[in-house]
Amino acid sequence: MKSFTSRLKERIESSQSWLCVGLDITPEGMGQKDASFGDVKQHAKMVIDATKDLAAAYKPNLAFFERWGIAGFEWLIEVIEQIGEGPVIIGDAKRGDIGNTAKQYAKSMFDYFHFDAVTVNPYMGVDSIAPFIERAQYGAFVLARTSNKSAANYQNHEKLGNPVYISVAKDCQGLNSNDNVGLVIGATAPEELKKIRKVAPDLPLLIPGVGTQGGDLETSIKIGNYSGPAIINVSRGISFAGDHSPDAIRKAAEDYVSEMREFMNE
Amino acid sequence: MKSFTSRLKERIESSQSWLCVGLDITPEGMGQKDASFGDVKQHAKMVIDATKDLAAAYKPNLAFFERWGIAGFEWLIEVIEQIGEGPVIIGDAKRGDIGNTAKQYAKSMFDYFHFDAVTVNPYMGVDSIAPFIERAQYGAFVLARTSNKSAANYQNHEKLGNPVYISVAKDCQGLNSNDNVGLVIGATAPEELKKIRKVAPDLPLLIPGVGTQGGDLETSIKIGNYSGPAIINVSRGISFAGDHSPDAIRKAAEDYVSEMREFMNE
Repeated sequence: MKSFTSRLKERIESSQSWLCVGLDITPEGMGQKDASFGDVKQHAKMVIDATKDLAAAYKPNLAFFERWGIAGFEWLIEVIEQIGEGPVIIGDAKRGDIGNTAKQYAKSMFDYFHFDAVTVNPYMGVDSIAPFIERAQYGAFVLARTSNKSAANYQNHEKLGNPVYISVAKDCQGLNSNDNVGLVIGATAPEELKKIRKVAPDLPLLIPGVGTQGGDLETSIKIGNYSGPAIINVSRGISFAGDHSPDAIRKAAEDYVSEMREFMNE
Repeated sequence: MKSFTSRLKERIESSQSWLCVGLDITPEGMGQKDASFGDVKQHAKMVIDATKDLAAAYKPNLAFFERWGIAGFEWLIEVIEQIGEGPVIIGDAKRGDIGNTAKQYAKSMFDYFHFDAVTVNPYMGVDSIAPFIERAQYGAFVLARTSNKSAANYQNHEKLGNPVYISVAKDCQGLNSNDNVGLVIGATAPEELKKIRKVAPDLPLLIPGVGTQGGDLETSIKIGNYSGPAIINVSRGISFAGDHSPDAIRKAAEDYVSEMREFMNE
């Protein structure tokens, strides 16, 4: 059975893309506050159809599905089917619980929803990571240094000179015996990205925060891919590009992928 | 509109109970690996029926519902209806995301599932707490110091002498203008509990880790309730008490509540 990280590397290689398309579709994002659930579903389908060959990965954020209740979870299953084989599918669920509880979440994410990987919140310690990485073919991207403004509130607290995000990165490197542990690091924190790459050279990185949040694409793609693989997440910058038409969405994704290819070839 | 914390205090007062019944029902916990989903649902209903007048609160942990996929979410709605008016209902979801994403989770937890409060993971900073406490009638219990073994991995990292869990407690005290912010602190960390009560004197505490995990009930109830209110969560110690019969379950809950009342009256 192929490990999660091998599968991700193969997809990057075959698609020559480092793009992760984030799926966070709301009526508000569509600029149509009164858009129906059906309109929202239609928009997501359009984004997937327009980008499938360009995406190394998709990252549906569970909040945007759960908001619709049970119908939203049914929609999530449809979205995962629509994406199908090829792109890696990451459930951005930020699950963070321990032992037996985390095992139930792993059952849900991998066996029920069929995600290839899930994002994990490490606040409760290494116990909260372990249950997601028991099976090599499924992966976990653990939050290390996030891209939002208040990220440093707790992530920069230190022990023996190591900020939380470095301790997380070191622990995850140590937990990677199944070749299926990754890290989340915001593109808005390039200095932290460099430090993390040093202590976790092999781990795949999922880098959000390019685009609307102002993160730097060149630094993210170059430093991210210096040793292990790194994929760059773009959500609104693709899903709500230009006039929101299939052409505008595809064009935005193509532009991101071309830029990434150029930086990787430099 | 009554604030979440007022509602919790009133329930504690009227029930003379500080007991939060955790609902984490699995076939494995029932000692019947082959138990059907129907058996699991039946067991949960029995636990609720046997404890409703004794519980200050219930805390369904979403992992144990989500594990069953969409049918599990339908079951969660049933459970919330079964509990009905009276006990406070806390969705143990440990949601941890920011801004617009956290808003979608709040919509799901409060407007769709109708929880009174939700547990929140603060790893991403204060941005990840704010969207859950905008409406006074709904509350958030933010993870400060958890009860599990690896809790100290990151929660004890320091900034200016403050470990993460104290920074979280201070920030939450500051965010409490709507009287609806609480903290989660494990019964297994009594020293940390004392420190947290000093910097967050008013906030309601949700204290897990009594029972199977070995936390001390007396310390938890006395220090927890020294200034603000504190409820003590018991999951397996009630749901899977004795021979798992309604009588054994009720007896376990009664014993916990009697002990709590004695400690409170000392």
